[in-house]
Amino acid sequence: MNRPFNFSAGPAAIPEEVLQQAAAEMLDWHGCGMGVMEMSHRGKEFISIYETAEADVRELLAIPAHFKILFMQGGGIAENAIVPMNLSRAGVVDFVVTGSWSQKSFKEAAKYAQPHLAASGKDSGFTRPVAPKDWQLSSNPAYVHICSNETIDGVEFHELPDLRALGCDAPLVIDFSSHVASRPVDWSRVGLAFGGAQKNIGPAGLTIVVVREDLLGHALPITPSAFDFKTVADNHSMFNTPPTWGIYMAGLTFQWLKRQREGELTGIAAMEQRNIAKAQRFYDYVDGSQLYVNAIDPAWRSRMNIPFQLRDASRNEAFLAGAKAAGLLQLKGHKSVGGMRASLYNAMPMAGVQALIAFMQEFERTSA
Amino acid sequence: MNRPFNFSAGPAAIPEEVLQQAAAEMLDWHGCGMGVMEMSHRGKEFISIYETAEADVRELLAIPAHFKILFMQGGGIAENAIVPMNLSRAGVVDFVVTGSWSQKSFKEAAKYAQPHLAASGKDSGFTRPVAPKDWQLSSNPAYVHICSNETIDGVEFHELPDLRALGCDAPLVIDFSSHVASRPVDWSRVGLAFGGAQKNIGPAGLTIVVVREDLLGHALPITPSAFDFKTVADNHSMFNTPPTWGIYMAGLTFQWLKRQREGELTGIAAMEQRNIAKAQRFYDYVDGSQLYVNAIDPAWRSRMNIPFQLRDASRNEAFLAGAKAAGLLQLKGHKSVGGMRASLYNAMPMAGVQALIAFMQEFERTSA
Repeated sequence: MNRPFNFSAGPAAIPEEVLQQAAAEMLDWHGCGMGVMEMSHRGKEFISIYETAEADVRELLAIPAHFKILFMQGGGIAENAIVPMNLSRAGVVDFVVTGSWSQKSFKEAAKYAQPHLAASGKDSGFTRPVAPKDWQLSSNPAYVHICSNETIDGVEFHELPDLRALGCDAPLVIDFSSHVASRPVDWSRVGLAFGGAQKNIGPAGLTIVVVREDLLGHALPITPSAFDFKTVADNHSMFNTPPTWGIYMAGLTFQWLKRQREGELTGIAAMEQRNIAKAQRFYDYVDGSQLYVNAIDPAWRSRMNIPFQLRDASRNEAFLAGAKAAGLLQLKGHKSVGGMRASLYNAMPMAGVQALIAFMQEFERTSA
Repeated sequence: MNRPFNFSAGPAAIPEEVLQQAAAEMLDWHGCGMGVMEMSHRGKEFISIYETAEADVRELLAIPAHFKILFMQGGGIAENAIVPMNLSRAGVVDFVVTGSWSQKSFKEAAKYAQPHLAASGKDSGFTRPVAPKDWQLSSNPAYVHICSNETIDGVEFHELPDLRALGCDAPLVIDFSSHVASRPVDWSRVGLAFGGAQKNIGPAGLTIVVVREDLLGHALPITPSAFDFKTVADNHSMFNTPPTWGIYMAGLTFQWLKRQREGELTGIAAMEQRNIAKAQRFYDYVDGSQLYVNAIDPAWRSRMNIPFQLRDASRNEAFLAGAKAAGLLQLKGHKSVGGMRASLYNAMPMAGVQALIAFMQEFERTSA
């Protein structure tokens, strides 16, 4: 089966092997006579799915033992409230705004905490974040929030900030929704990471939270029990019925990730090498073209989400129609930025990038 | 394919036709080249799935136009916080406790409102709820909360209370998680209904909320934006990325429901007739047996969740092992009640009830 290449920013392409396995097991998981959606979350079948998924993601992302892994619901937007409910103690929280998603987080936190804008890339149209050395951190924030990859704006932290080196002892919170599992995470610099699954891990409706144990247990009294990290951790993500299908799909994706190889590299290291190569190839092409442009500071360009504009915006509709006809789907940019966006998540092979570039070359040639 | 009969209380059995369709469309929905999990929630493909699901459930449940239908996340336990956040205005809320689920709702509401216990069936071990005429309602509660079917305790409201007839003008909130779509709803008596999907509608991770429009817009300031009913309604359940797969599966289930026929009856009316017949058959058998007992007041017995005990509890493990060997799955009762529980949701055919009774008869005969 030759499927089109799907460049959606999320919900996004899922590896074909994963979808095929899910279809094959739909009515009967491992001979138990039930599909995964039909299992009690407290039965031994689902518990084994859950425990395998948790162990696999811990291994893949090298998550240290003193971090809890939570499977929750509500996505990044719900976490924009849930994180300050759990971590702020109603105090000062520093936000570094690098695009649409960190801006949303900053705004929502005002319901629960005293958000302080430590830096904003808004003056540059979010094409160039403020470097950590220039952040105006508070003297004693409850935590510092960044979005480590901005899905809409296409900027990515290629190194997580070292808050201690900046003279700040607060935990770092990262929203890693749109680049989770695309590269390793330096957990020594992180207090909490959260992400919706629907870009690189699985279907929408599953949220993964990785939180240092010492940060648990300080939720505001108005925190819903279902969203109190300590309650969730103490109940192994089963205080409320978890999104069982999402956890299963994420588990299949983790197993797929573990099978990936690039030379000597495996798992996330292999994926990172591929992701570097895919992004490099695409940016090189865009930078060398006359028709397309990506305005992001090269040091901050995202490997996952690449917004690009046609210099002649009147050609946008023709571009999208032609791309679709060529089997290249969901390339329309976010409405707040316009133009196009190619999301090159783990499930996008180099062949998809090559096909996109080939189409863009032909489109540029015939547009001239 | 002969699958076992799955009596899980939830996540629960899904109609085989629905699972087969989901498997067949897994890699390519309607020729678009993407699976449902891979689609942007803002693309025309998913929008059509969403709009069809919404229209179908409105038609099936005869939901009036002045009610909004919201597709959310977090299940009933999250709604135990989200409903008082949205509806209580931090005032008095009356709770009628008929079992485990309404007890949980009562407890969680204390974070946001002044919960008042209007009635409790605890003295009877939740075998016999307090009749509405004996409820001690407050003079002006923000709303009155009931759980219209208690999944664990096996009691069901066969008629929704008419609060106006009781001299109360407050809206009635019903947690209908475990009997939604099993029978019609008298919306003239309801202000808001909520339910997790994982019993009668689809997979875990999707919550359906049906709310009268005039109740929107009064959320407490600490309500997360993702859980503010007005924000959710104004954004057609897409303020945050919705659980797209859950909505798709619910939509397939709604279409399956629309295809059901019993004589002249279709849809929910047909399902109700079947559900009455299945429950009657099972209760009749239990009441006539020497080994099995159901302690619930017959006027309040649930059609969906039937807890039953073996008079000789030492036979419990043998019962469960024998049932599993006979292709009758997930019959173990909730740990707080013990014994057994047969959940007879829409997806359970009469043949499953007959098979269970046949096994129980044989087990009783050989246990004597």
